[in-house]
Amino acid sequence: MPLDPSRTVAELRELQELTGDENGAQRVAWSETWVRAKDWLEAKLDGLGLEKEVDEAGNEWYTLRGESERAVLLGGHIDSVPNGGWLDGCLNVMAAVEVVRRIAGEGRPPVTVRLVNWADEEGARFGRSLFGSSAACGSMADQKELRRLRDVEGNRLPDVLAEHGVDLDQAGRSRRQLENAAAYLELHIEQGPVLESMDLPLGAVVGTFGVERHLVTWRGQAAHAGSTPMADRRDALAGAAKLALHIREVAAAAGDGAVCTSGNVVCSPGIVTSVVETAEQLLDQRHMDSETLDGMLGAAREAADRFAADENLAVEWERIWGIEPILFDEQLISFAEEAISDVAGRSHRLPSGPLHDAAEVARSGVPTVMVFVQSLRGLSHTKLEDTKPEHLELSVQALDRLASRTIDLVAGS
Amino acid sequence: MPLDPSRTVAELRELQELTGDENGAQRVAWSETWVRAKDWLEAKLDGLGLEKEVDEAGNEWYTLRGESERAVLLGGHIDSVPNGGWLDGCLNVMAAVEVVRRIAGEGRPPVTVRLVNWADEEGARFGRSLFGSSAACGSMADQKELRRLRDVEGNRLPDVLAEHGVDLDQAGRSRRQLENAAAYLELHIEQGPVLESMDLPLGAVVGTFGVERHLVTWRGQAAHAGSTPMADRRDALAGAAKLALHIREVAAAAGDGAVCTSGNVVCSPGIVTSVVETAEQLLDQRHMDSETLDGMLGAAREAADRFAADENLAVEWERIWGIEPILFDEQLISFAEEAISDVAGRSHRLPSGPLHDAAEVARSGVPTVMVFVQSLRGLSHTKLEDTKPEHLELSVQALDRLASRTIDLVAGS
Repeated sequence: MPLDPSRTVAELRELQELTGDENGAQRVAWSETWVRAKDWLEAKLDGLGLEKEVDEAGNEWYTLRGESERAVLLGGHIDSVPNGGWLDGCLNVMAAVEVVRRIAGEGRPPVTVRLVNWADEEGARFGRSLFGSSAACGSMADQKELRRLRDVEGNRLPDVLAEHGVDLDQAGRSRRQLENAAAYLELHIEQGPVLESMDLPLGAVVGTFGVERHLVTWRGQAAHAGSTPMADRRDALAGAAKLALHIREVAAAAGDGAVCTSGNVVCSPGIVTSVVETAEQLLDQRHMDSETLDGMLGAAREAADRFAADENLAVEWERIWGIEPILFDEQLISFAEEAISDVAGRSHRLPSGPLHDAAEVARSGVPTVMVFVQSLRGLSHTKLEDTKPEHLELSVQALDRLASRTIDLVAGS
Repeated sequence: MPLDPSRTVAELRELQELTGDENGAQRVAWSETWVRAKDWLEAKLDGLGLEKEVDEAGNEWYTLRGESERAVLLGGHIDSVPNGGWLDGCLNVMAAVEVVRRIAGEGRPPVTVRLVNWADEEGARFGRSLFGSSAACGSMADQKELRRLRDVEGNRLPDVLAEHGVDLDQAGRSRRQLENAAAYLELHIEQGPVLESMDLPLGAVVGTFGVERHLVTWRGQAAHAGSTPMADRRDALAGAAKLALHIREVAAAAGDGAVCTSGNVVCSPGIVTSVVETAEQLLDQRHMDSETLDGMLGAAREAADRFAADENLAVEWERIWGIEPILFDEQLISFAEEAISDVAGRSHRLPSGPLHDAAEVARSGVPTVMVFVQSLRGLSHTKLEDTKPEHLELSVQALDRLASRTIDLVAGS
């Protein structure tokens, strides 16, 4: 069966009809709508000669056996956030369906090709994302903590998973699925504005950002807004304000797509008649290069010390969370660029800000790459999420070419 | 009876013993402790030949009849905030007691001298300050609104006042108390750090600041902290941060004790993974000169418009509250400076940041002045509030000399 990218767009619309409403996609993992979407997916793959298996974490594997057991994986997630978009996650599932159709139509492939539908990438119900991929990749968070999670209605995560045939205690056994994995390929919408701003349909993703996340607490002195001369103030907000502005220079100096964000400042006492005594500021810094990220953190801390001295404040840093940059496979990145250039004329390398299942797979040691397709206005996790149909079709073609190159590589190695 | 300033300090300590606990002063208006303080005050004035009257707003008037009905008023408030200091409000009541003792000991004065203990200056229980003085001065807030006020236990203001013999509907009749008022004198702790920083015990207060209070709302665009390049952001926090820093330049340019305060910034969505979409910022600006204050507001608005343009934000201003500057009487300010120079060698003119009963009296047209005595570390409304005893004694002497000059002025006019 020759590749038909327009079918992918049609099938995505069909899925949207089946599992969305006026507020957007509703394929929240561990819901009835999610099950309906998975049943629909199974029907789409019927007749291609694939073996279906659901692993201990709830991930679905559709395997096209090849000459070799070594496997090229094409992955995505059919689950969505509530009121989500029509593309986030399911685009790659459906593009992979089309690619597998093409490969299966050509007879037994030289290597095994597997389509994986990861379980609960979004973590929308229990607040824990990358559930299925982290289990299969051996990096699942502390199970004790998972066991305590409840949804908004108070249902416990282990109970809800059990209803879907998943035993949390056994989820880690899904690791054996990656034993023969030789490569992992994932197509995703960009969920950001870069490709649109560059007027490019597609980009090759070099990896996911490293993240440093801190709570910065500034301490000054509460003082009456009317009776305290400006020169005598120790205004905690001044420290937070200076840092909020300075991190833009830190990002600019680091370059290569560095981003720094101050997402919140909480002032106390927080009243109109008092100088701010304490300002608690959130800081998120991201970069693809670990050393550069360390340098960004160092630059922000150094500036904060300077601001604290200038403003006669105390400043404290508490690390909330962090993750190392995860680099994708250089050979596969080149293949992705070639595939993209083949179908779209030009390619562009860019990092991924958000994490993806692909980051888990890459961390586990499987050579990985992602292809991004342009997101209109950078919007995602909303029913306004959209991508032009012609770009979606190009993305299916690019994934197909990338898969071919990767299969050839694995077959030859 | 010659003036004995050390007695004032001893009596203030006695009052502290009687009405404070380990957390500070507890003379909250409309409480039993407040009543106890007032009974104690009455006993202190016993035998001086004063006529006592409680007006319709609960203010207590102790009158020493003079040759003329024209009256010089010495005012303060014996009520405190909960866990308050030992000086805020009662210092002038007790200093005035000592001055009235001295005057009464010299026989019938040329003009009438009245000591007023204002009811509920602090507004600690119902959140409405200057209750008694605003009633007597004809500027009491909408009575409908007062009628709805409740304390934390749910007691209605009118009911609680009735227990103390005050009928809210009749409170405005207290205005007749000011009919013969020719001057009003009030001594108070500074509640700020200016005099201490200048190493001066006393200062002459030129009036109370005009205030402009606004809510400034900055609107940008929420965007993913990982996938949104710095150049594409519309960060509402950047606008608020720039304004928080810029108002210091606005205050410096205005001079003459100008103060600008940003007491709070509320960010939304306020999460670590998103650029701030909306920042709601409180702004409080104060100056003694009405035109300068207008200019400060204009300068802040103009800068905000510039910041909004630079950051691609929208900015809106909502006026929360404002009051014109209230200037004290130039002749009485000169008298206060002379009295202060007499007892302390040097004087200094300064504005009052906080409002006081004196502001209400001045607004009503009665020539008014205040004397400030140094506050240690600028602290007030806490048990840590303090002033050196030698400074308290100087302040009693200064008030006494100011009263003498004022009586002479009123007698001669």
